[in-house]
Amino acid sequence: MSKWVYTFGNGAAEGSAEMRDLLGGKGANLAEMAGLELPVPPGFTITTELCRAFYDAERHYPDDLEDQVMAGIRQIEASFGTRFGEAENPLLVSVRSGGRASMPGMMDTVLNLGINDATVEGLAAASGDERFAYDSYRRFIQMYADVVLGIDHFHFEELLETHKTGRGLTLDTDLGAEDWRTIVEVFKRQVREDAGTDFPQDPEEQLWGAIDAVFGSWMNRRAITYRKLNDIPESWGTAVNVQAMVFGNMGEDCATGVAFTRDPSSGDKRFFGEFLINAQGEDVVAGIRTPQPLTRQAREAEGSRLASMEEVMPEVFAELVEVYQALEAHYRDMQDIEFTVQRGRLWMLQTRTGKRTAAAALKIAVDMAEEGLIDHAEALGRVEPASLDQLLHPTLDPDAERQVLAKGLPASPGAASGQVVFNAEDAEALAADGEDVILVRIETSPEDIHGMHAARGILTTRGGMTSHAAVVARGMGRPCVSGAGLIRVDYVAGTLSAGDVTVARGEVITIDGGSGEVMLGRVPTVQPELSGTFGRLMAWADEVRRLEVRCNADTPADARTAREFGAQGIGLCRTEHMFFDTERIVTMREMIVAENEAGRQAALDRLLPMQRRDFIELFRIMADQPVTVRLLDPPLHEFLPHTEEEKAAVAEAAGVSLEHLRQRVLQLEESNPMLGHRGCRLGISYPEIYRMQARAIFEAALEVTGELGQPVAAEVMIPLVASRREFEFLKTEIDAVADDVAEARGERPTYLVGTMIELPRAALRAGEIAQTAEFFSFGTNDLTQTTFGISRDDSAHFIENYLAQGVMAVDPFVSLDQDGVGELVTIAAERGRGARPDLKLGICGEHGGDPASIAFCHRAGLDYVSCSPYRVPIARLAAAQAAIGSSGPDSD
Amino acid sequence: MSKWVYTFGNGAAEGSAEMRDLLGGKGANLAEMAGLELPVPPGFTITTELCRAFYDAERHYPDDLEDQVMAGIRQIEASFGTRFGEAENPLLVSVRSGGRASMPGMMDTVLNLGINDATVEGLAAASGDERFAYDSYRRFIQMYADVVLGIDHFHFEELLETHKTGRGLTLDTDLGAEDWRTIVEVFKRQVREDAGTDFPQDPEEQLWGAIDAVFGSWMNRRAITYRKLNDIPESWGTAVNVQAMVFGNMGEDCATGVAFTRDPSSGDKRFFGEFLINAQGEDVVAGIRTPQPLTRQAREAEGSRLASMEEVMPEVFAELVEVYQALEAHYRDMQDIEFTVQRGRLWMLQTRTGKRTAAAALKIAVDMAEEGLIDHAEALGRVEPASLDQLLHPTLDPDAERQVLAKGLPASPGAASGQVVFNAEDAEALAADGEDVILVRIETSPEDIHGMHAARGILTTRGGMTSHAAVVARGMGRPCVSGAGLIRVDYVAGTLSAGDVTVARGEVITIDGGSGEVMLGRVPTVQPELSGTFGRLMAWADEVRRLEVRCNADTPADARTAREFGAQGIGLCRTEHMFFDTERIVTMREMIVAENEAGRQAALDRLLPMQRRDFIELFRIMADQPVTVRLLDPPLHEFLPHTEEEKAAVAEAAGVSLEHLRQRVLQLEESNPMLGHRGCRLGISYPEIYRMQARAIFEAALEVTGELGQPVAAEVMIPLVASRREFEFLKTEIDAVADDVAEARGERPTYLVGTMIELPRAALRAGEIAQTAEFFSFGTNDLTQTTFGISRDDSAHFIENYLAQGVMAVDPFVSLDQDGVGELVTIAAERGRGARPDLKLGICGEHGGDPASIAFCHRAGLDYVSCSPYRVPIARLAAAQAAIGSSGPDSD
Repeated sequence: MSKWVYTFGNGAAEGSAEMRDLLGGKGANLAEMAGLELPVPPGFTITTELCRAFYDAERHYPDDLEDQVMAGIRQIEASFGTRFGEAENPLLVSVRSGGRASMPGMMDTVLNLGINDATVEGLAAASGDERFAYDSYRRFIQMYADVVLGIDHFHFEELLETHKTGRGLTLDTDLGAEDWRTIVEVFKRQVREDAGTDFPQDPEEQLWGAIDAVFGSWMNRRAITYRKLNDIPESWGTAVNVQAMVFGNMGEDCATGVAFTRDPSSGDKRFFGEFLINAQGEDVVAGIRTPQPLTRQAREAEGSRLASMEEVMPEVFAELVEVYQALEAHYRDMQDIEFTVQRGRLWMLQTRTGKRTAAAALKIAVDMAEEGLIDHAEALGRVEPASLDQLLHPTLDPDAERQVLAKGLPASPGAASGQVVFNAEDAEALAADGEDVILVRIETSPEDIHGMHAARGILTTRGGMTSHAAVVARGMGRPCVSGAGLIRVDYVAGTLSAGDVTVARGEVITIDGGSGEVMLGRVPTVQPELSGTFGRLMAWADEVRRLEVRCNADTPADARTAREFGAQGIGLCRTEHMFFDTERIVTMREMIVAENEAGRQAALDRLLPMQRRDFIELFRIMADQPVTVRLLDPPLHEFLPHTEEEKAAVAEAAGVSLEHLRQRVLQLEESNPMLGHRGCRLGISYPEIYRMQARAIFEAALEVTGELGQPVAAEVMIPLVASRREFEFLKTEIDAVADDVAEARGERPTYLVGTMIELPRAALRAGEIAQTAEFFSFGTNDLTQTTFGISRDDSAHFIENYLAQGVMAVDPFVSLDQDGVGELVTIAAERGRGARPDLKLGICGEHGGDPASIAFCHRAGLDYVSCSPYRVPIARLAAAQAAIGSSGPDSD
Repeated sequence: MSKWVYTFGNGAAEGSAEMRDLLGGKGANLAEMAGLELPVPPGFTITTELCRAFYDAERHYPDDLEDQVMAGIRQIEASFGTRFGEAENPLLVSVRSGGRASMPGMMDTVLNLGINDATVEGLAAASGDERFAYDSYRRFIQMYADVVLGIDHFHFEELLETHKTGRGLTLDTDLGAEDWRTIVEVFKRQVREDAGTDFPQDPEEQLWGAIDAVFGSWMNRRAITYRKLNDIPESWGTAVNVQAMVFGNMGEDCATGVAFTRDPSSGDKRFFGEFLINAQGEDVVAGIRTPQPLTRQAREAEGSRLASMEEVMPEVFAELVEVYQALEAHYRDMQDIEFTVQRGRLWMLQTRTGKRTAAAALKIAVDMAEEGLIDHAEALGRVEPASLDQLLHPTLDPDAERQVLAKGLPASPGAASGQVVFNAEDAEALAADGEDVILVRIETSPEDIHGMHAARGILTTRGGMTSHAAVVARGMGRPCVSGAGLIRVDYVAGTLSAGDVTVARGEVITIDGGSGEVMLGRVPTVQPELSGTFGRLMAWADEVRRLEVRCNADTPADARTAREFGAQGIGLCRTEHMFFDTERIVTMREMIVAENEAGRQAALDRLLPMQRRDFIELFRIMADQPVTVRLLDPPLHEFLPHTEEEKAAVAEAAGVSLEHLRQRVLQLEESNPMLGHRGCRLGISYPEIYRMQARAIFEAALEVTGELGQPVAAEVMIPLVASRREFEFLKTEIDAVADDVAEARGERPTYLVGTMIELPRAALRAGEIAQTAEFFSFGTNDLTQTTFGISRDDSAHFIENYLAQGVMAVDPFVSLDQDGVGELVTIAAERGRGARPDLKLGICGEHGGDPASIAFCHRAGLDYVSCSPYRVPIARLAAAQAAIGSSGPDSD
């Protein structure tokens, strides 16, 4: 004989939390609570095994099921003191599904089972509330008819409406006991009409009908679709939970409430919640009545006029306190609990891990570790790394009113308000006057960098989470909303508009880079405070993680921020950003439009000291930490002017004819700049550019080495390499510059030469490339673009649709595509280390700041991740979670 | 004792052609000829092993070398009847390097070794020509000083100039014996000055000096660089050949000549060549004297007044005929031979496989197979597949004068002349009037297709061998020169210019798509004739090849051409080309600018019958052969108008506001269209487009199935898939259309649904994709673009430089990059077949017509290659060569 039924209640349980596979999540948790001798309404669980047996036998139950179910009912009766179908003192039960995996809203539930024409009277008598009894009856009929008999609940709502209209009433609460009694009759008639039989009066018949329906719902279309989308195997089956109903609305000695064992907003260690006297669970959340505080302290703190539970039900409250403490001690995490008090007796309906803000998660984790409830590793696993973002950026005052204009992508967190400007020059000018500005562009380009720096926030109408605007804004720690497609920008008129609202240059808007919202006017923000708790958690993270965390930083300000956040070096310093400075862009353009190498060299000679100065500053800030400098990467046309006026100005400055300049601009134009003449291809076409940069790096390194009395760890990184020969060609050039510098200075700079692995071919040929390359840094932005053949700047058009249609599970520019791009990373790591066992491996794409991607990097054996300064703490925590094998808190 | 020296001559040889590794190419060939008892001047080879031993012992010879070398000299003396250093009858020798691999011009040679102050007189006496003797002496000094003593030959040329100036003479031929005698003295003085010793008079000393120099040259910088660039291992070493000198300029019974055993131009089986009485080898090629024909027949055919060798030296001629016949019979290929007659005695100096035109290669291979000299497999291996191009396209008359304006890339073979036009409309209009036009564009886009069809040839100033212009032109069989960067096009003025030459619209130019030349005026062309020989070779190819050959064809004309050339189906029918027709583009644009799905559907409903008609025609032509139709691939903006006038016209036609149209154009604009909203991404965004195309295919297939009484093999191909889900999503749509059509017609179309593998991710996830995909077609153009991260339209900028610098060995858009892209193809093939063993695999990129890439496809186990119609014969031959393991004829 198989055991199909597991009972719980009355301070004991046949199951436990470990038996989730057999009892489903809900059944296992109820058993666990009951096993803790907490006051759980008694009940039993029919196992998932039965579900499989049911379907294997073509929807027939095994012979021994009925006896076990009825024995379960008898046990509830015994423990609860009521009897199924007994008119005076009827037992009512709920029948609920509950699988191994949560399938919210997908499966069915029947409440109040056991009411019939006889027991409804007993219920009225027992509760002293006829209205309650008949309302419960009509709810039961409606639910049962829908779930078990397949009668559309729409019919019943219509009948209810008709009755209300006839009586001139509007709200359900207007109806009295007589109304509900009448409606029960009307409903029963409807059932007879639609189902062709009377509504079942026998509670046992009701029970089997409900059990059949719940097991049957495992195979309904919604459930099948949900399982397919969430990769839940059909063979898991569902369990069925049958449990005594308890009521918080049977009088003034009844109540119902919800509570958190700690403050879910701040994380403070205090009991926190609300309750209502003589009410049902729904009433607490429905907001019709104002809930009362649980504790006296809370009442006083809130200045509430409503009595607290501690005051009105001191004994039950004391019991509840014991229960919540037991639950927290048992589950070792903050719990979200639901309880009902029926006739002065406390019943626990549910406990689960409570949702909390990022700040609360952090505080609770650290507090619990310090209380000895959990260890450091568990504490680290309790905080969602990405949520730290909230703690590092100013956020909108949650209480402030806001008029949302449009919604774009939450491209860089934080909130900012300011006057709208439409170009970088205006942004710089207004900011210089002390104004806050929001730079609004259709999309940004490297030329806008200085304006982005000057602005409080950036808004673009085109481009995704990894567009230029998004990447640069995150790097700078500027809030950014990108791809707000519903906003139209008219540069000529100097306006933006959404729907029928138009905002002119100089008017104020607010953007929330955490939600993507764009709002009219200035919405107040709140500044974050980095608590000591934060520092403690970070220190624990640093103790366990294996991955180093570097930062992507191009400016001294970025580098300083990153060090403060705990970065262990610069993993990516993009040198091109250094050339967009107003003074330098002129020289850069002269270099580009030069007629020959001599002309280029002359301009480069003027750029050399500027570039050297940049590196000196960065090396000073990073001191003994490694600094990876990527040589010039973007195509030259990105530096050239677009408007006729600018062209004329550049031509004059460079001493070339306007015609020559136009020709040069035309000549450099590209159909697909992402796949064009950029990266190491520039270095091979114009070796003098890379020579100048290498010289600037080496001279700066020697200078700072002298100042610090210890060598600077310069790492020269060649971008966009596709083959061994490209790398060798340029490494030879760079080594020759080092020789030159060493000869001139009498001292040799310490440096490594490595490459980005950002093209599929480079990943495949990594074994060859590593013969000369001393480190690899995975440029997973470009590697994702080329592996998928998707331009991140153009993908907003269809990736959103892909996500909506389920064609993609996650945007591969946000979280590394481990199956495709990840395989290339793994191949490159293996082949690279095969050729050079001590090859240093890192990642410097945007994925370096994404927790799931960081976990992948840990598994792939990388040495470090590099991310934007504001993501460094996130990366440190994610790296720690990867090291301890935690996947972060469940986000259910 | 090791054997370091191998002798040859006098009808015997210690070596043979098989000993190339030991004796080097030259030594092995001389030994082979001698072994055939042909009259080869006697000599010996010092082995490559000695070279290794020499370097292993830090440039010291083994003790036993000297004896062996001197024994070799004694053997030459014995056989030749002259003696080294003997004044009356001196032996002169040449000392030449010769490695396993040819390293042309990289290593050193010394001729006339053995002359000194004494033997020069003997040489004068023996030849009866003092001028010859002293000229030979001064040449020897000059060469020896350069090669052995390291004295720059520039010094000697200067001295010679000084002498000539002093004597008022201009040409070397003006100098007499006395002059040369004086110059010898002057040269010897120079040697004494520069080298600090006298010019060596002892022939043995001369010999060892030359041997040292040749072995030493293996490690000179030029040689090291050449080996590095050509992957020749240093350990191979070089051999040294010492051989008796013979002279064709010792009198009227002396001669020298070159000959081919068959006509290298036509391939006709007749002895073909030239000779000169009393001349040196250089004289024949130098063109100072007009060479005489070899045969009487040739003299008569040419109407030459010069006597033939057959007539003036009948006995030696007869001997030469025997020799050439023996050589051809032995080497079983057409030979290019050099000979010298010294005092009535024939000496063979060299034989090698003769270079020939494509037509000759074809004829010789087929003739020799029919003569029984070689088998079919060998005949197939004798023809360079790519050379067949010359036979299929009109070519410029080689004798015509030409004024070259500029040179671009030879993008599509064949030559064409016509009036210059700068847009597709003009091309169409003029062509309709019966004019020949050349369409000149900076670059072409799909909108230009109708103009390209109308033109005789296409010239672009931007874009590479695989630019849009190049690909489409090759597909159409139109000659094309692309990327002629020195030509500037001014659309407004309607002119093109190169340097100071300007050509206006309507003026005539000629382009040669085989050489890349652009010429002024009309240069006459010659039409090819496809011989029966061609058909025979093709038939043999078809017998042995395993790979099927399909074609890339979008139009009935292409499909017919391809079938004539032997295509076995269509591997790629690009449906987008069908929408550029003047009538259809309007409807297409209406579809694109439609406000919603209903609007799009209305336009698609009008496109359906047109599209169905296209497929009906193609299915009829291809009958039982498979037709692979690729669903719409390019981004929609490619179909939209660019000029304001066109936009206004489209807006009116589509019934939308101009503003709406502008917005739509702006909205569809992309930064990197290659990586944008195209391929299956369109199909997922607008399923109605793919549904229309699928319907057109299925309805057409059923119609033609009815006509032919046998099923049409339609293959529906989904482009740009990166993941299993994309494919499944669209396959479901397509299958649903098939269900609809089957229901409406009462008959189900036979079809397969497969995908392009053109993204690295698709290759990596091929195992998953093949679970539902029924065939893969490798789109190696895009796969190359994404694997390398190189846009083919933008790569001309730097790939040319890469090739010049040796950073790339071959343009990966021309020949498949087997290491990188090839690995992805192999991975996809393996994983795809792992999931579906009968998965059909093909390639439809431009590489499908490249012989080296075809060989790769054969090895990778693909089922077919698909290429442009004019390349089908090339592919058939290349596939045959791959099957028989031939890599085609050596191209030295």
